Amino acid sequence: MSNPQPSDRRQLFPLVSADIALFSIERERLRVLLVKRANEPERGRWALPGGLLRPDLDASLEDTARRILREKTQLSVPYLAQVATYSGPDRDPRGWSVDVLFYALLPLDQVPAVAGSKTEAVSWRDAHRPGTALAFDHSQHVAAALAKLRAKVERHALPLHLLPPQFTLTGLQKTVEAIVGRELEKSSFRRRLKGEDSLEEVTGGFERGVHRPAQLYRAAKGFVFEG
Amino acid sequence: MSNPQPSDRRQLFPLVSADIALFSIERERLRVLLVKRANEPERGRWALPGGLLRPDLDASLEDTARRILREKTQLSVPYLAQVATYSGPDRDPRGWSVDVLFYALLPLDQVPAVAGSKTEAVSWRDAHRPGTALAFDHSQHVAAALAKLRAKVERHALPLHLLPPQFTLTGLQKTVEAIVGRELEKSSFRRRLKGEDSLEEVTGGFERGVHRPAQLYRAAKGFVFEG
Repeated sequence: MSNPQPSDRRQLFPLVSADIALFSIERERLRVLLVKRANEPERGRWALPGGLLRPDLDASLEDTARRILREKTQLSVPYLAQVATYSGPDRDPRGWSVDVLFYALLPLDQVPAVAGSKTEAVSWRDAHRPGTALAFDHSQHVAAALAKLRAKVERHALPLHLLPPQFTLTGLQKTVEAIVGRELEKSSFRRRLKGEDSLEEVTGGFERGVHRPAQLYRAAKGFVFEG
Repeated sequence: MSNPQPSDRRQLFPLVSADIALFSIERERLRVLLVKRANEPERGRWALPGGLLRPDLDASLEDTARRILREKTQLSVPYLAQVATYSGPDRDPRGWSVDVLFYALLPLDQVPAVAGSKTEAVSWRDAHRPGTALAFDHSQHVAAALAKLRAKVERHALPLHLLPPQFTLTGLQKTVEAIVGRELEKSSFRRRLKGEDSLEEVTGGFERGVHRPAQLYRAAKGFVFEG
């Protein structure tokens, strides 16, 4: 297609933004982070952290997502991946918009998020029931991101990015249960882990402060969250 | 984030485009459609059909993809879905760009594509070996789209959108084999189809012109290509 003329730029260049569904585990439940919007549109409503692409600052939309998370929540995340891209003239009151939704995983031993300079407040919500009446199309965004995470875990990907650096197999099972939303049978879960090369035993590492301490495990080098 | 000022528009609004990896089956092989670019940039090189979003014409980027396919190949497709979104300052010589890659499936009984008004020529290539030196990052695009289609079929989704309205189980198996790139064992493939509710027998429908005609099947009502 030929190069657009300058007079067409407003029309040919829609708003481009990134939103992030950041998941973590707290008290054995899967949580998603919401922020209270400090600016229009939808000021004062709860939403996923999100914001506009800055071509002068960002080398990719993944960069945009990481920058926004830092600005709005002061958090850095090890794992971030695309869920889907939403687009159309009616999603955002400012006009035709393209919004790339990411999901990210935060280990449960990290400090809870605090509000950044561009956010009034943050809140960790139950990811399976984040509340209705979120800003924009963010209720559907949470559902889509959760479905993606859940499908990956159902296909046997281990969500090790949600765990602390060392964890027990029981802790791993509870994390998987928190994502899929149901209890799993212990013996079949353990069978599934046999020969799993993304897990390795911590030599001589055991839980502390419990009567019968369990073996500790960690993610093997080069672990990737695939599935 | 606050409303961008008009003077910032050029910077805040990158190029937004859609590309389509259109797959079909021809002579029992999975093919992907390439077009020879009629315009700069990359004029004369082979590429996936793609083009810029037109907010004045398109209700979504899915719409953009379908419009571009019509313009460049005169084809309409029943199935179209997102693969991923690519972004950054260096993918396109025209500047910071956001490109949403879709894949689409065309039934093998459809007429082959002819060049549209915006394309010099079209070519159906072996999807597993589309050739090197495609325009932009389109060699990686083909690989990513194929990986998505293949993963879906490996997870037992039936690629019925690639088949004619009525087909035999042998035809179905050959289509799956063309996608995954290896032969499958017939009896285990047939076992997998047992209780598959997306398939239904055509009552009294059999192949024609062969010695021992096989039962014909079709996609059940409400079939969705999920997995």
